[in-house]
Amino acid sequence: MSLTIAQLARQLGADPDKIGSSSSSVLSKEITGVGPVTTAGENEVTFVSGDKYKAALTDSSAVAVIVPECIEGLDKPQLVVKNINAALIEVLNIFAPKLKTVTAGIDPTARLAQNIKIAEGVSVGAYVVIDDGVEIGPNSIITSGCKIGENSKIGNNCRLDSNVVIYHNCRLGSNVVIQANSTIGSTGFGYSFIEGVHRLIPHNGGVIIEDFVEIGANCCIDRAKFDNTIIGTGTKIDNLVHIAHNVVIGKCCMITAQCAIAGSSKLGNGVVMGGQAALRDNIEIGDGAMIAGQSGVTHDVPAGQTMFGTPALEKKEEFRIISAKRRLPDMAKQMKQLIKRVERLEAAEDDKE
Amino acid sequence: MSLTIAQLARQLGADPDKIGSSSSSVLSKEITGVGPVTTAGENEVTFVSGDKYKAALTDSSAVAVIVPECIEGLDKPQLVVKNINAALIEVLNIFAPKLKTVTAGIDPTARLAQNIKIAEGVSVGAYVVIDDGVEIGPNSIITSGCKIGENSKIGNNCRLDSNVVIYHNCRLGSNVVIQANSTIGSTGFGYSFIEGVHRLIPHNGGVIIEDFVEIGANCCIDRAKFDNTIIGTGTKIDNLVHIAHNVVIGKCCMITAQCAIAGSSKLGNGVVMGGQAALRDNIEIGDGAMIAGQSGVTHDVPAGQTMFGTPALEKKEEFRIISAKRRLPDMAKQMKQLIKRVERLEAAEDDKE
Amino acid sequence: MSLTIAQLARQLGADPDKIGSSSSSVLSKEITGVGPVTTAGENEVTFVSGDKYKAALTDSSAVAVIVPECIEGLDKPQLVVKNINAALIEVLNIFAPKLKTVTAGIDPTARLAQNIKIAEGVSVGAYVVIDDGVEIGPNSIITSGCKIGENSKIGNNCRLDSNVVIYHNCRLGSNVVIQANSTIGSTGFGYSFIEGVHRLIPHNGGVIIEDFVEIGANCCIDRAKFDNTIIGTGTKIDNLVHIAHNVVIGKCCMITAQCAIAGSSKLGNGVVMGGQAALRDNIEIGDGAMIAGQSGVTHDVPAGQTMFGTPALEKKEEFRIISAKRRLPDMAKQMKQLIKRVERLEAAEDDKE
Repeated sequence: MSLTIAQLARQLGADPDKIGSSSSSVLSKEITGVGPVTTAGENEVTFVSGDKYKAALTDSSAVAVIVPECIEGLDKPQLVVKNINAALIEVLNIFAPKLKTVTAGIDPTARLAQNIKIAEGVSVGAYVVIDDGVEIGPNSIITSGCKIGENSKIGNNCRLDSNVVIYHNCRLGSNVVIQANSTIGSTGFGYSFIEGVHRLIPHNGGVIIEDFVEIGANCCIDRAKFDNTIIGTGTKIDNLVHIAHNVVIGKCCMITAQCAIAGSSKLGNGVVMGGQAALRDNIEIGDGAMIAGQSGVTHDVPAGQTMFGTPALEKKEEFRIISAKRRLPDMAKQMKQLIKRVERLEAAEDDKE
Repeated sequence: MSLTIAQLARQLGADPDKIGSSSSSVLSKEITGVGPVTTAGENEVTFVSGDKYKAALTDSSAVAVIVPECIEGLDKPQLVVKNINAALIEVLNIFAPKLKTVTAGIDPTARLAQNIKIAEGVSVGAYVVIDDGVEIGPNSIITSGCKIGENSKIGNNCRLDSNVVIYHNCRLGSNVVIQANSTIGSTGFGYSFIEGVHRLIPHNGGVIIEDFVEIGANCCIDRAKFDNTIIGTGTKIDNLVHIAHNVVIGKCCMITAQCAIAGSSKLGNGVVMGGQAALRDNIEIGDGAMIAGQSGVTHDVPAGQTMFGTPALEKKEEFRIISAKRRLPDMAKQMKQLIKRVERLEAAEDDKE
Repeated sequence: MSLTIAQLARQLGADPDKIGSSSSSVLSKEITGVGPVTTAGENEVTFVSGDKYKAALTDSSAVAVIVPECIEGLDKPQLVVKNINAALIEVLNIFAPKLKTVTAGIDPTARLAQNIKIAEGVSVGAYVVIDDGVEIGPNSIITSGCKIGENSKIGNNCRLDSNVVIYHNCRLGSNVVIQANSTIGSTGFGYSFIEGVHRLIPHNGGVIIEDFVEIGANCCIDRAKFDNTIIGTGTKIDNLVHIAHNVVIGKCCMITAQCAIAGSSKLGNGVVMGGQAALRDNIEIGDGAMIAGQSGVTHDVPAGQTMFGTPALEKKEEFRIISAKRRLPDMAKQMKQLIKRVERLEAAEDDKE
């Protein structure tokens, strides 16, 4: 893929008057890729979104730079765009490595059960196993080695990467992506201790994954005991995340790698969990709350609150405690001295009496 | 599936005199499912195990309720049972979604090596690979995409879900369940640093998984350097758990999601580990000990003790510290004031001398 | 496998004069295995590397012992070796369980795309799927159920265990081992929030895994947005580890189970991370730094430093704080008493004035 600076500017809707040059020898320079300021090559465009990298721009080999605002005094063509993030996504798509198009059709080795419905444009890869009653919507891609259990339904334009396992009675909306080796609909960790043994509580429910949800690699989302475990529209989940039975996650949440959400907890919309954070069971996290990485939340969290630590507290409170804790060895010393000083004062007092 | 209230009462052994009605129009009402108090439909039975949900019962649409004790003044048929947990498991099994029965037999695409022994009633799914010397006991189910390595033995009534990988020389007892994408018998993380490089210590041992063990999805249980990594009878393991080489876990332990147990550590019977808890290597955890979620245990734990925090302390001690820690910012202020007050007293004292 | 004591001594380069016996009835005793001091059988050799197990040696059934230095007064043949760790690896290899040799060749069920290059001696197992443009170097083993994406390159003597998924445009050096169910080259967790939705930032980069890297089971290594996520030569990675997009790990690092390294962070050479430790994004960890288990590192770490806690501090500092924290409940009591004592002194002072 190759574009001139002028062509790329047009495609990104960059202001032509702010490129910093109208010379055709500049505007016709070829761009063949995109890279970060420090590593972009001389045929690549780069981008800066904050002041942090502006200094590095002068040393950058990049042929041009995408910026949210004109940088004064820069000796490099500038593509000034309204939304730097949207422009970056567009330019990355333009220069994405070219891969073979996935072709529609069912691989002859795919093992299809009876009574399944596979819509137009679906691609089913090699060694896929699809059980009875499964339905797959138009243009979805089921990559090699996947297993889809009985009666599970998959919407339009979904993509399951290799070796994903979907158990029975799960429902995926449209435009859902699940990366390799993830497991959806496993039986949850629900046992009753009866007459000296742990007996499994049957998990009669399923999993509902709504539209535009994207799930990383090697994740586990357990099915519900009753009703459904639910992942709301537009929520994104990183790698190696555990979501227990009957959890309900709202819309547009971000769940970073290795988080764990215990049984029946509920997240509102737009909740963000940092890496390795965990929620205990049966709690509610309000809309827009943020849970810092590695935190362990043990009670309900109001909307918009940021939590930190284990057991997690509101972030400012926890930070005050952390800050005080770091002065603790000094405080301990002060305390010792203070005790001595008070003893001396008491002795002096005693002498007087 | 559909039962009348009278039929369900009989099946659960509920006291017929306590249903609260002997009218045949009540006793012959149809029940087609089971659900929690708040979501059960008008043809469903619900259940309450504690006082917490009793209030919600009045608003519940459920046609009847399973209870451990008669609730006074409730205008709904009651099935009073001896063990509410056992009754719930039974009623969930009665109304479980009907799935196709797994049929015995070996899929023609299963790749079977020489010298294997597969007992009666075993089901081996599509694209399963079974290496030399493997033995599988009666009525076990090996789902599609599994791999069973050389000389591994699997007992009766086991179930391996899709894409489980069992390495060589592992032994599973009977009634073992392993959910999708889990890995049993991988080589452990044991290296010696010799002449500037990390050299792998060969892992000559195996893994023994005893009867009635159930393992979640995407777990890893490493093989031993010598002898065996052992998971004791009746122990249950959640998703994404890591169990290192030569770990020995006793009977009826509960290991919640994302726990990590480092090399050669030993757990007694009935140990419970909360989510994301970790044990360092070469320590012993006594019978019935509990390790709170996210805790990190660095030394032996006596039987029956509950541990909390990182590095973990006995729970009450840790809670006292957490409680004191939360008053720390106030303490720091008090300390400052106290220093000033002592200074003033000292100054007064000096004046006198 | 069976060797006499004399033969094993020769093979390990053990000093023949220090065996402690020259009687041929001793030197010709058969050794058929190796085991730890406490469990080694009477036909097995054992080993001790420190003083800890010397006492147990007397009670050990082992026929002989491998030691770094002669133990005085021990009534058992001793194989005194220069490097106990290297000797242990050698003896474990000698007595490793015999497995069928993997034979070169491509299984007829392997699904090979066009334009791939598979070198001599490569073994491709059943139900493997290899996409367009893939290259595999001599003597590599691709076990059953693996998927290798478009244009990925794999060097010599690599081993991918069952059900490993490698996405497109990844490059593995030589002697790389990846254990079962791991995922290499998944798309990272990079989103921009644009007009109310999280939009995926395309990941145009790949993953480079250098020579002698060994990766455990169920790990996830994400591809880069630009350039490559890099795992340096000789680095070893345990199970269930998450490595995000654009992370760069140096040579000979040790990353223990369930660690998480967030986007674009850089590790020098010889960095060690304990289990469940995490690094935030965009930080640098110097050569030889150590991150204790469960720690969460939030800023750059100088070379050679050991970090502990969340947020992590230099280990000695954190230990001082932990130690002070444990005295905190006592300190709180002392504080209360001290306040009373100062009040009393102040009252006495007031009386005088």
